[in-house]
Amino acid sequence: MRIRKKPWAEEELAQNSHVIQDAPGLKGKWAEYFGNENPIYVEIGCGKGGFLRKNAEAYPHINFVGIERQMSVVAVAARRIEEELPNLAFVLTDAKNLLELFAVGEFQRLYLNFSDPWPKKRTYKRRLTYRGYLQSYRGAFGKKGEIFFKTDNRGLFEFSLNEFCADNWKLSNISLDLHHSDYKENIMTEYEEKFSEQGMPIYRLEARYGIETKETEGNGIGKE
Amino acid sequence: MRIRKKPWAEEELAQNSHVIQDAPGLKGKWAEYFGNENPIYVEIGCGKGGFLRKNAEAYPHINFVGIERQMSVVAVAARRIEEELPNLAFVLTDAKNLLELFAVGEFQRLYLNFSDPWPKKRTYKRRLTYRGYLQSYRGAFGKKGEIFFKTDNRGLFEFSLNEFCADNWKLSNISLDLHHSDYKENIMTEYEEKFSEQGMPIYRLEARYGIETKETEGNGIGKE
Repeated sequence: MRIRKKPWAEEELAQNSHVIQDAPGLKGKWAEYFGNENPIYVEIGCGKGGFLRKNAEAYPHINFVGIERQMSVVAVAARRIEEELPNLAFVLTDAKNLLELFAVGEFQRLYLNFSDPWPKKRTYKRRLTYRGYLQSYRGAFGKKGEIFFKTDNRGLFEFSLNEFCADNWKLSNISLDLHHSDYKENIMTEYEEKFSEQGMPIYRLEARYGIETKETEGNGIGKE
Repeated sequence: MRIRKKPWAEEELAQNSHVIQDAPGLKGKWAEYFGNENPIYVEIGCGKGGFLRKNAEAYPHINFVGIERQMSVVAVAARRIEEELPNLAFVLTDAKNLLELFAVGEFQRLYLNFSDPWPKKRTYKRRLTYRGYLQSYRGAFGKKGEIFFKTDNRGLFEFSLNEFCADNWKLSNISLDLHHSDYKENIMTEYEEKFSEQGMPIYRLEARYGIETKETEGNGIGKE
């Protein structure tokens, strides 16, 4: 996501209670920060934060941490929180620093929403579902983990299916047209709202390892 | 595939050397039938046989068996073989009878091409990639097996991805737009030739168990 530079961004980040100032200092201490032992779900590339904000409102017993590397974007995400959400925090940093922010097993789920597709062949290692990244997520998750991934980019989704399979993640709830599927719990990102109005399909999957998946036969099947 | 009934079908089947008359009698004896120990690849729902015919010509050291349940369709498939292909045979029967045709482990690969999508929700158990079918294929394969699947039907492909994953097959070479991918060995079916001219995407995957997959990193990745 690219947005125009906000001159007020730096000040917003410094003042906003939802922005973590010294994130590496919280490594292993996130439960202390949130004041509870609730599960922690992380979104990498959280953009303007709408997805996490709506999740934090809908699921008060889950703590949400959004990671975003663009200062102006984090500032917008933080500013858009109207009422204090004690279970939501944003960190200005790069996905590469995940292992510096969390102790192994400290968060339980990762969201990757509409990540940059890096469409050129030679840049595939920058895609957040590249097997190198998947392995680093495993390193952060420890014994078990789950990733919820969605995108509007067919090429990125195809790439991701292959990468998850190559790295032996168990996939479920794969959707090639999310907004016309049976999946009802979907919470949209800002980008998704805009994009789906154009009628283009949204792709989604859940990837897990070390976790028993619940797979209801006939769930999400067919048209009628 | 539905075609008009051919009055000459029965006679064609009786006379054509590529049509197996007593297929259950060959169970455990296919190597004897072909006169060699070459691998056997089976296509369920082979239609007019173009895919297998072209494969048989391209890969003389593989034996191909096409299964098709419509008499007129098998008759067309058999009639279209112009030169004798000793490594190609057709059987008029239903997919359900696979275990009656082959001993466990007697064939090594299964092709499912453009299978009937059975789009209505209540008919999902008839889809050839329904987990019940996948389990019966496992029964026929024995210790290891591989399925190459392609379709133009997005709903069927989505369903199939979920079914293969639920049944713990290892997927690779997943393509959401086969004809614009790096996969160069594709041999088209009659239906595929017709359909792909309309510019619609063809979906494809390879599913295996008990077999080490070769996955070249960066293979089939990206646009340029």
